[in-house]
Amino acid sequence: MSERIFGHIPGYPVGSWFESRAALSEAGLHRPQVAGISGTEGEGADSIVLSGGYEDDADWGNEIVYTGHGGRDRGTGKQITHQKLSRGNLALAKSRLAGLPVRVIRGSTHKSNYSPPHGYRYDGLYRVEDHWQERGRAGYYIWRYRLIKSAEAGIEDSQAATESKGSYSVPQRQETTVLRIVRDTKLTRKIKEAYNYHCQICKIRLEGSAGPYAEAAHIRPLGMPHNGSDSLDNLLCLCPNHHVLFDYGAFAIADDLSLIGIEGSLTLVDGHCLGQANLRYRREHYFLGS
Amino acid sequence: MSERIFGHIPGYPVGSWFESRAALSEAGLHRPQVAGISGTEGEGADSIVLSGGYEDDADWGNEIVYTGHGGRDRGTGKQITHQKLSRGNLALAKSRLAGLPVRVIRGSTHKSNYSPPHGYRYDGLYRVEDHWQERGRAGYYIWRYRLIKSAEAGIEDSQAATESKGSYSVPQRQETTVLRIVRDTKLTRKIKEAYNYHCQICKIRLEGSAGPYAEAAHIRPLGMPHNGSDSLDNLLCLCPNHHVLFDYGAFAIADDLSLIGIEGSLTLVDGHCLGQANLRYRREHYFLGS
Repeated sequence: MSERIFGHIPGYPVGSWFESRAALSEAGLHRPQVAGISGTEGEGADSIVLSGGYEDDADWGNEIVYTGHGGRDRGTGKQITHQKLSRGNLALAKSRLAGLPVRVIRGSTHKSNYSPPHGYRYDGLYRVEDHWQERGRAGYYIWRYRLIKSAEAGIEDSQAATESKGSYSVPQRQETTVLRIVRDTKLTRKIKEAYNYHCQICKIRLEGSAGPYAEAAHIRPLGMPHNGSDSLDNLLCLCPNHHVLFDYGAFAIADDLSLIGIEGSLTLVDGHCLGQANLRYRREHYFLGS
Repeated sequence: MSERIFGHIPGYPVGSWFESRAALSEAGLHRPQVAGISGTEGEGADSIVLSGGYEDDADWGNEIVYTGHGGRDRGTGKQITHQKLSRGNLALAKSRLAGLPVRVIRGSTHKSNYSPPHGYRYDGLYRVEDHWQERGRAGYYIWRYRLIKSAEAGIEDSQAATESKGSYSVPQRQETTVLRIVRDTKLTRKIKEAYNYHCQICKIRLEGSAGPYAEAAHIRPLGMPHNGSDSLDNLLCLCPNHHVLFDYGAFAIADDLSLIGIEGSLTLVDGHCLGQANLRYRREHYFLGS
C-alpha cells in the first residue's frame, strides 16, 4: 500500500464529488470503505467521512464536532457501550498532537446544512483542535473531536502556529506542494522520534492521554529573510517551555553545545549533527544575553 | 486619552484611506503623528505605519519585515548607531509575546508594490510572529519584526493558535466585535498579571528578551459544545508545558485544588476563585487518569 498522505491529494481539489465510498477509496481521499476514520494509532488520522453514523455529530461548516467510533450495535447502530481511545479514535487524537491536517469528506446521509445532495464531497483540510470524552445521548461515554477548517489562502496564523507549536499543520503558502508537506511532516516527526519526544535541553517528556508531545524547533528560522534550511542539522526537539525560551532569546547554544543564558548543555543523539552556522545565526540574531 | 484598542477600529474597514498622518491619528488608527510605532512598553504596540523611513523594511504583502526605530540621524535619516529593544521596539516585541493584533498602515512613501499611490491606507491586522536583531545595511544593529497578516475570514488556525498558545490574537470569527476582543485581551492579561506570569502548577516564570511569558488556559473550553465562560473563575495562568499537559488530559484539578494525575496542588492568589463546575467539567471530559 502506498504511503499515507496527510494533506490534499493531487488531482482532487476541494469540492471534488464522488458517487460512492468505493470511488472515494479509489481516489485515495479516504481509503477505508466502511470506517469513518482513516489512519493508525502510530501515524495519526489522515481523513474522516461524515455520513450520519453518529447521532452526536455536530457541524457548523468551518467547525465540526465529530464523534469517535466503537461501542455501537452493528445491527441497530445504537450506542451499547463506551468508546475507547484506541484505533481510529486514538489516530485522530494523534493527529491533534502532531498538528496533522485531516481531509474531511461529507456524505449525503450526514445530517447538516453542509451535506451534498448525493454521494460524497471532499470539503478540504481541517485540523483537530481538541478531543475529549463525554456521555453521548445514549448514555455511554463517547470520544469527540473538534475540527477547525484550515485557511486555504494566505499564510496567516497557521504559519505562526506552525512556527510556535512546531506542528505539522499544512503550510498555507499557495505555492507549497503536497510533496513538500509530506516531507516536512516526516522531518519534524523524525527529529521528535530521534529523541523519543524528550526535550534536548531539560530531557522532559510530556505525556498526554494520546501519547507524548514535543515540538520541533528550527534553529535558523525558515522563510524570508532568514532562509534557514528545513533539514535535521537545523532542527531541535524541545519541550514547549524551552521552545518559547529559545524563540524569545532567553538562551542560545554555543558551538560546543553548552547553553548560553541558562545552565546546562544540549543533548545530542548519535548521528544528529547541527550546523554550526545555524547555531551562530541564532546566537547573533536572537540572543541578547551578552 | 481613551483606551488603546488592539484590533480593528469601528467604522474604518480594511482599505480605508487617509490623506495625512493627522487624519490617521484623528481616526484613532495610528495615534502618533510622527512615530512609526504606536504603543508602550507595558501595553504592547497596537499599530505601525510603513512610510519608507527605514531602508531595511521588506514587504511581501501578507508578510512584512519591519524595522524598529531609533539610532538614526534626525537630519539625514541615516542609521548612525545601534537600535535598542526599548520604547516602540519593545512594544512590538510585547505584542508578539501577548499575541496582540497590530494594525498595519501603508503610506505612499513606503517603497513596495503594496503602497497606496497617495496618502495612507489601513491594510488590516497583522500579528508579530518573530523579532530579532541584525546588522542593517548601514552596519549598525537594528531590531526587526516579522508581521503576518491575520486571516479575516473563518476561524481557522488562528483559533487553534489562540487556544494552544493562550494568545490574545484577534479571534477570526466574523461576528466577533472589537469590544469583545478588547475584553478578552484584558481578561487573559489580567490572569497572567495576577500571577505575575508564574505557572499555577509549577510556579515557573519564563523570561524572554522582551519580558515574561505565560499562557491563559480556559478550564471549561470556550465555544460549542462546551460553552465555557470567558471569566476569571474559568481561567488559569500556566506555563506552556503544563498548558499542554492540561489540554491533553495528563492531569486534572480536584475541588480541593490538589492535582490528579501529577504531584502537587494548584496555587491560587487571594481573590481568584475557580468555578467548581468548571473543574468538574474538565475532569469529566479531559482526564483519563482514573
